[in-house]
Amino acid sequence: MSTPLCFLNDHFEPFACAKVHVSDLALHRGYGVFDYCREIGGKVPFLGDYLDRFYRSAAGLRLEVPMDRGQLRENIFHLLKENKYGDSGIKILLTGGETGDFYHPAKPNMMIFNMPYHAPDVSFDQGVKLILFEYQRFLPEFKSINYLPGVWLQPLLKEKGAVEPLFHLSGRLTETARANIFLVNKGVVCTPARDILMGITRKHLIAVAKEYYEVEVRDVRVEEIFSADEVFMTGTSKHVLPVIQIDDAVIANGSPGPMTMRLMEEFERYITSH
Amino acid sequence: MSTPLCFLNDHFEPFACAKVHVSDLALHRGYGVFDYCREIGGKVPFLGDYLDRFYRSAAGLRLEVPMDRGQLRENIFHLLKENKYGDSGIKILLTGGETGDFYHPAKPNMMIFNMPYHAPDVSFDQGVKLILFEYQRFLPEFKSINYLPGVWLQPLLKEKGAVEPLFHLSGRLTETARANIFLVNKGVVCTPARDILMGITRKHLIAVAKEYYEVEVRDVRVEEIFSADEVFMTGTSKHVLPVIQIDDAVIANGSPGPMTMRLMEEFERYITSH
Repeated sequence: MSTPLCFLNDHFEPFACAKVHVSDLALHRGYGVFDYCREIGGKVPFLGDYLDRFYRSAAGLRLEVPMDRGQLRENIFHLLKENKYGDSGIKILLTGGETGDFYHPAKPNMMIFNMPYHAPDVSFDQGVKLILFEYQRFLPEFKSINYLPGVWLQPLLKEKGAVEPLFHLSGRLTETARANIFLVNKGVVCTPARDILMGITRKHLIAVAKEYYEVEVRDVRVEEIFSADEVFMTGTSKHVLPVIQIDDAVIANGSPGPMTMRLMEEFERYITSH
Repeated sequence: MSTPLCFLNDHFEPFACAKVHVSDLALHRGYGVFDYCREIGGKVPFLGDYLDRFYRSAAGLRLEVPMDRGQLRENIFHLLKENKYGDSGIKILLTGGETGDFYHPAKPNMMIFNMPYHAPDVSFDQGVKLILFEYQRFLPEFKSINYLPGVWLQPLLKEKGAVEPLFHLSGRLTETARANIFLVNKGVVCTPARDILMGITRKHLIAVAKEYYEVEVRDVRVEEIFSADEVFMTGTSKHVLPVIQIDDAVIANGSPGPMTMRLMEEFERYITSH
């Protein structure tokens, strides 16, 4: 098998060979932004949304993207054409750059990766477990590379049989390490309004849900999740994933609920039509 | 001028050429640890303390240091001998490593950098300004590379004429982005006890201060700093640095206080004798 191509600053090169200088501010201070979208059957659903967010994240961290949207889009599709996966993941990464003093941002390194898509190793039929964890991401609206808690918590997640930490701040729910969270209660779909990454899947799921149900985007307390009829999470790689347990508390009867199942189906239909 | 040498995994190479693969988890998720110490006149004061903390940070983030203390010490002194600065900075960096899925830690990349020492560009005679900022580092006792707030706040610091943000959590002081904080009130030296990086300079400054003054290591409220007689910060590159203003509030008469000045002198004497 040949190694896939990736993009690095101004050229395409085999992923296996691509390297950056050791002075990069992402290595020294965890400073950088990224975004991740999916190629599905040769198309990239909601690419415009992902590019919007990527440029917004870069501006939020005061990093200059060294190409305009047209060039970025062109580079992405060149990679897809060369790598020929058909279904794949696309990651755009912009670092703080090669810095003289290991502290001040300089000329960013920009990379685009394209890798085979592997569905998350979880049960969409049975649902998954989360664990509550108090933490608030810094600048949550920007997709920075700061994932220390999410990565660090992995052994605990494994031990508990959970897939992600569900973050809250003084009992107000926000998001999981890599996804947005939704509750269903008395037929109403509800999701936290603030201090979160504005997920692209979240945005479109809200649009889909509004066609069938009442939707509330507002502050959500931890207590509400324990009395919810249904819970699910949304993300680019998982789309809609039912949640059936938080810590030791089983949600409702411990199976994915009917509204979650319907939204899973409707979302797949919606994304195919886009 | 020839480029200095650095150490990368298993060999020494010119810093200008040293590169790591783009799959490193520090680039993708800001996951890694480091430490920084100084060579002063060919010696490295408190090196044992710095190595202790580095191995503790690595263990805290569940990263394996690919060499024992003896080898690490040997590599450091080999760099100092080759680079011949006499006075320099030494940075040890251990990343989350080259990962297959951009999320799970793998074999770490380990680097040692040695660069000329530049004294911080601040006035030790006149003292410096800090700005208060609410933030709590995740796993503060480990020296992770997670410096998003410190790096991100730099334009604001510059605008305000401040050198560092002073972090607090609900009004309880912790530390600055890169240093520990001390107050002097009614002849007593006091410094926050918890949720901080245990600074090596902090530790030795406490030892020095105890020879002359009463020292309290305890929780410190933000309000206390505004009524303090003196304020100073400690760190590896700055040793003891007087603080004369927090936001718009001038500390006492706006000049470095007598106890701070004495501790600055005594600390320099102490470090020379070590």
